[in-house]
Amino acid sequence: MTTGAGPVIKAARVTPILIWDPPLLNLVGVHQPYTPRLIVEVESESGVVGVGETYGDTAYLEIAHALAATLPGRPLASMNELGRRPSGMEDRRLGGEDEQDKSGFRGVLTTSKLHASVVSAFEVACLDALGKESGLPVHALLGGKVRDRVDYSGYLFYRWAVHPGDDVPSDDWGSALDPAGVVEQARRFDAAYGSRSFKLKGGVFPPDQEVAAIRALREAFPDRPLRLDPNGSWSVETSVRVAQELDGVLEYLEDPTLGTSAMAEVHRRTGLPLATNMCVTSFDEVPEAFAADAVQVVLSDHHFWGGLLATRDLAALCRVYDVGVSMHSNTHLGISLAAMTHVAATVPELRYACDTHRPWQTEDVVTLPHTFADGAIEVSDAPGLGIDLDRDALERLHRRWLDSDVRDRDDVGAMRAAVPGYQRPAFPKW
Amino acid sequence: MTTGAGPVIKAARVTPILIWDPPLLNLVGVHQPYTPRLIVEVESESGVVGVGETYGDTAYLEIAHALAATLPGRPLASMNELGRRPSGMEDRRLGGEDEQDKSGFRGVLTTSKLHASVVSAFEVACLDALGKESGLPVHALLGGKVRDRVDYSGYLFYRWAVHPGDDVPSDDWGSALDPAGVVEQARRFDAAYGSRSFKLKGGVFPPDQEVAAIRALREAFPDRPLRLDPNGSWSVETSVRVAQELDGVLEYLEDPTLGTSAMAEVHRRTGLPLATNMCVTSFDEVPEAFAADAVQVVLSDHHFWGGLLATRDLAALCRVYDVGVSMHSNTHLGISLAAMTHVAATVPELRYACDTHRPWQTEDVVTLPHTFADGAIEVSDAPGLGIDLDRDALERLHRRWLDSDVRDRDDVGAMRAAVPGYQRPAFPKW
Repeated sequence: MTTGAGPVIKAARVTPILIWDPPLLNLVGVHQPYTPRLIVEVESESGVVGVGETYGDTAYLEIAHALAATLPGRPLASMNELGRRPSGMEDRRLGGEDEQDKSGFRGVLTTSKLHASVVSAFEVACLDALGKESGLPVHALLGGKVRDRVDYSGYLFYRWAVHPGDDVPSDDWGSALDPAGVVEQARRFDAAYGSRSFKLKGGVFPPDQEVAAIRALREAFPDRPLRLDPNGSWSVETSVRVAQELDGVLEYLEDPTLGTSAMAEVHRRTGLPLATNMCVTSFDEVPEAFAADAVQVVLSDHHFWGGLLATRDLAALCRVYDVGVSMHSNTHLGISLAAMTHVAATVPELRYACDTHRPWQTEDVVTLPHTFADGAIEVSDAPGLGIDLDRDALERLHRRWLDSDVRDRDDVGAMRAAVPGYQRPAFPKW
Repeated sequence: MTTGAGPVIKAARVTPILIWDPPLLNLVGVHQPYTPRLIVEVESESGVVGVGETYGDTAYLEIAHALAATLPGRPLASMNELGRRPSGMEDRRLGGEDEQDKSGFRGVLTTSKLHASVVSAFEVACLDALGKESGLPVHALLGGKVRDRVDYSGYLFYRWAVHPGDDVPSDDWGSALDPAGVVEQARRFDAAYGSRSFKLKGGVFPPDQEVAAIRALREAFPDRPLRLDPNGSWSVETSVRVAQELDGVLEYLEDPTLGTSAMAEVHRRTGLPLATNMCVTSFDEVPEAFAADAVQVVLSDHHFWGGLLATRDLAALCRVYDVGVSMHSNTHLGISLAAMTHVAATVPELRYACDTHRPWQTEDVVTLPHTFADGAIEVSDAPGLGIDLDRDALERLHRRWLDSDVRDRDDVGAMRAAVPGYQRPAFPKW
């Protein structure tokens, strides 16, 4: 441990919460009514508190408690130290040979990927606190913003109107289960958020139906970039066929199929740019994928990669190897949206709109949730992340976690609640 | 240009200086009695001044004046913005097809490499000022130090006792022109700086003489890592022969020969780790060299790569591609030594001692020059770089520049002053 380098950490707290999540469909099932998230607070000796947010499933929570215990006494400026894998930590694969992560869709899950996700929340909290201590916005602690606004795409989902069962919250978006429903959803994104591009979460229906939805979007919005993300649910042959059908329509196709060699083959045979948050989700996976030209756009995610500095490292790799970079999202609240916006503002080569689930969330733990204009969020110049923790909301959502037995996200189990006997589909689905 | 992000730049100043340089020998000639450096100051609207330092030759100076004029009104936190190549800037090769840079030994020189070197000084000055404004040391602005001390190797040179001619300053190191002289120099480094490893600048004498010097060092210091750097002056066959002779003696061999394919062949045939500050000195050169396994240690240099954030980008590339990283140096003063120490302190995977010329300089522009203990420098936790500009010294060294017609470093010309008719040697020398 280093010594004497600026403000010091007095305490670190982890608070698991459950947030409401609408019935968004994906390749394996449906979002649960409530999903766990983890809110991290890092407090300096002078009482300044920085916040971070990450996955809240049991495995993450255990690591977070252990990591939090090591923080008091460290400098707030411990971002590089946090990023190092603990010397005793074995990097092993979790789950079976072909098993992909259930909650994050981040490919094969390993202990070091879990660790990086937990680190990301503490790293963001340290940056937030350090910014508040020093009067600097987080982007200035990352070398300074190169843009004043960060573009986000409208993230479209096939969905039901309501979760099955009684006593679950609901929203007024209605269902979207066909091309017309998808276009209607996009129109609301356009009206409410000004989205300048759209991404459709696919892998839910047979490819032809999803191709039809993309074509309907193209007709409704002739000039806006469109993306389709079936989360690796297609075979190489299906991927090639869809890529050819949507040639000239899609900005990029996201994770049509699983694995470096399959992705490389799809790109080689079609020329369509492929984006990923499944094929390449850790630094270990970069050299092979880049050498094979398996991915043309890496969707960064500071939760996956270990924080904001790590996201900048990834951006540097992409720049040097002439690979595009954009940003992936999973269910998240305003703390992570602030963190995503700060780091995105500092990456010159970010030329695609980022993804965010945030419009689907009806709850938050920040006092002033972000607003979108023309699909973009303004980069805050206030000290730290530029947000304030809503302690009442945090307490309420933590109370919900305490009162519930939901501890992990399980999209397959949620689907089974609606479709008795439902099983996780075999891959490729089509 | 972005807006409103913290402290703003009021003024940027560039001050060319001439500093005394001892008669250190290298493959093309000898250091001149006086060598140009450039001191950069960036002043915020509140009057806080940050400093940076880089090459002072005419080509760099011209770019610096142009860049300085664009800074007023920008945020201090403009490090990412500074790093972008200006949109109008053509990246062209300077000099002839085989011509290598004369003053920096950084391989083929291009306009973008010159630009990066100038940017590095302004970037360091911005970080220094931002640190002073915010109360944070520069390492905290780079994610925090992971060590409290940075190791530097003892940088040994063949040298004359004095420059030829009258009216030139001198020092008391005496000459070093054979193995005994090199060992004597190393003993003084050991006594005065506590150097824990040694690097010999080679390419001066036929390889067998330099091998003999390394063997003499090994005998005098059985346990200290040793390096030899002939600056690309050998053929592949000579490199292979020397590598085999010094197998088990050298920590690494630095730039034995020129070019990616030649370096790769030497490594393939010998297995000896090769370090470089010539084969790979810009991001454009990384993919080919890494793919060919041409270099096993990249010697970063924030002047070459465009600043401290760029140095961290390079370190990330090296980490992901399992290539070692250390640090190169050219003639420099305490501002650059402070910058080198801060960034080195933040790179976890730095496992080799860094290079520095600083012990050879008898002048400085900082009020309290750094001191070495056990070959290392303590990482400052004071705001900014943790140094103060000595304005009297700056004025005196600038006055020298004004009163002199020396504008560029020219080791060949300096040798010609001692050896009439001397010409730059053809490559490979041996």
